[in-house]
Amino acid sequence: MTSIEAPKPQYAQIAALLRSRIDDGTYPAGSVLPSEPALADELRISRVTVNRAVAMLRSEGLVKVRRGAGTFVRSLPKIPRDAQRRYAARDKGTGAGQVEVTELNLRSRTDYGNIRRMQVPRPDIAKTLQIETTDDVLLRPRVLYANDEPTQIADSYLPWSIAGRSEALMHGDAGQGGSYSRLADLGYGPVRFTEDVNVRMPTDAEQRTLELEASQPVFEIWHVAFAADDTVVEVCIHVMPGHLWTLRYGWDDPIAAHGAAK
Amino acid sequence: MTSIEAPKPQYAQIAALLRSRIDDGTYPAGSVLPSEPALADELRISRVTVNRAVAMLRSEGLVKVRRGAGTFVRSLPKIPRDAQRRYAARDKGTGAGQVEVTELNLRSRTDYGNIRRMQVPRPDIAKTLQIETTDDVLLRPRVLYANDEPTQIADSYLPWSIAGRSEALMHGDAGQGGSYSRLADLGYGPVRFTEDVNVRMPTDAEQRTLELEASQPVFEIWHVAFAADDTVVEVCIHVMPGHLWTLRYGWDDPIAAHGAAK
Repeated sequence: MTSIEAPKPQYAQIAALLRSRIDDGTYPAGSVLPSEPALADELRISRVTVNRAVAMLRSEGLVKVRRGAGTFVRSLPKIPRDAQRRYAARDKGTGAGQVEVTELNLRSRTDYGNIRRMQVPRPDIAKTLQIETTDDVLLRPRVLYANDEPTQIADSYLPWSIAGRSEALMHGDAGQGGSYSRLADLGYGPVRFTEDVNVRMPTDAEQRTLELEASQPVFEIWHVAFAADDTVVEVCIHVMPGHLWTLRYGWDDPIAAHGAAK
Repeated sequence: MTSIEAPKPQYAQIAALLRSRIDDGTYPAGSVLPSEPALADELRISRVTVNRAVAMLRSEGLVKVRRGAGTFVRSLPKIPRDAQRRYAARDKGTGAGQVEVTELNLRSRTDYGNIRRMQVPRPDIAKTLQIETTDDVLLRPRVLYANDEPTQIADSYLPWSIAGRSEALMHGDAGQGGSYSRLADLGYGPVRFTEDVNVRMPTDAEQRTLELEASQPVFEIWHVAFAADDTVVEVCIHVMPGHLWTLRYGWDDPIAAHGAAK
């Protein structure tokens, strides 16, 4: 199973050097990276090589180019997202939206888009919501930020037949406990969740909204909430830059729980 | 929140056409894609454009190049991996390893590498196993296949202080119920699991083993098993091509379970 690795090309060696300088604080979080000519000069290598090395760091999300301002060292830490804990914490504030960001003492911001009634826009969303493709949904679209950097797009779809009964759900801030508490007010409080996690490359629009390169993969999570009678009350599609997040899940072992393990 | 998309470049339009031909069965699963010159001819476009379009499909995992044999249409379906269910099903056979692959009626194969005692190879693994960096582990490395295509690398690390007591764990096939049943025999049966999910680009070695392009992201899952006394009895690091898998997790809502929801 051991495999012999080919010696690293020079740009990869330079990338490793820059990575270690970011790790050890030579280039502090949030600072401007030295320019490519300056790095080429210091390291006595070609600008082409520096450029390829920096492109590697960009793909990894270790540095980010802000047009007209330079190349910046990553300032956000990797954010752990513990699914069970985040939704359990929702009754403490206005919902689960920014639990992790607040825990890391990052400044959180949520920008709501146009909250609106619409026909369900995709057959796979209709199927997940167990409604007809001609039925209506309430769309609650938002972009979440930490320290003013975008961390995820979260588009929440609720069956209009349920959500349409709550005036509070038409607003970004749905009140104490967030939208799930409003669903509970209507007798449809979520009691069970599933999440389907996929990974893919970002669309052009996502690259712009999330400040990503085309080479940076995103998580796409379909978070589905079920009421006690198994009605699906929400599907929320989260699109999250892969380099920013670690997803955490946990569960008790059903075999041990049922006493089958010896 | 609506964004105006720029008109698609020609190669992206060609990629969309090829994608729809794969979807509708014009190019069946597992078949050889027409050659790039043939496609350029048929579609009256340049070979450069065809080449970029095919490169897009390769990145998405829709086609795969086999050196000397041509470009093949993807033959494996997306494999759903339901974490809770996969480990619950382990007592039915020789472990959880290939539950999903078998359920899809795909031919499963597991190639074990060199199962061996060694010093824990990385500080983060030592930390997760709650052992010293000078302690030993049992490494059980394997590569899993479906219809002879690689689907994941799974390197399992167990504290030697526990695993060293079981002769069966020194073999790829650890017997009925797999390695967890052997841990249970020793009084360390797993009762609780956590999984941390990250996404990243594959290393050179992973590209070779998993037959991936450099542009295809992988899931890296750290699956951690806990015994009843909270001893960590295993960490298994799964590296899985992103395009092949959907991860599924589910849980009951702790707020509803504790009666706090109204």
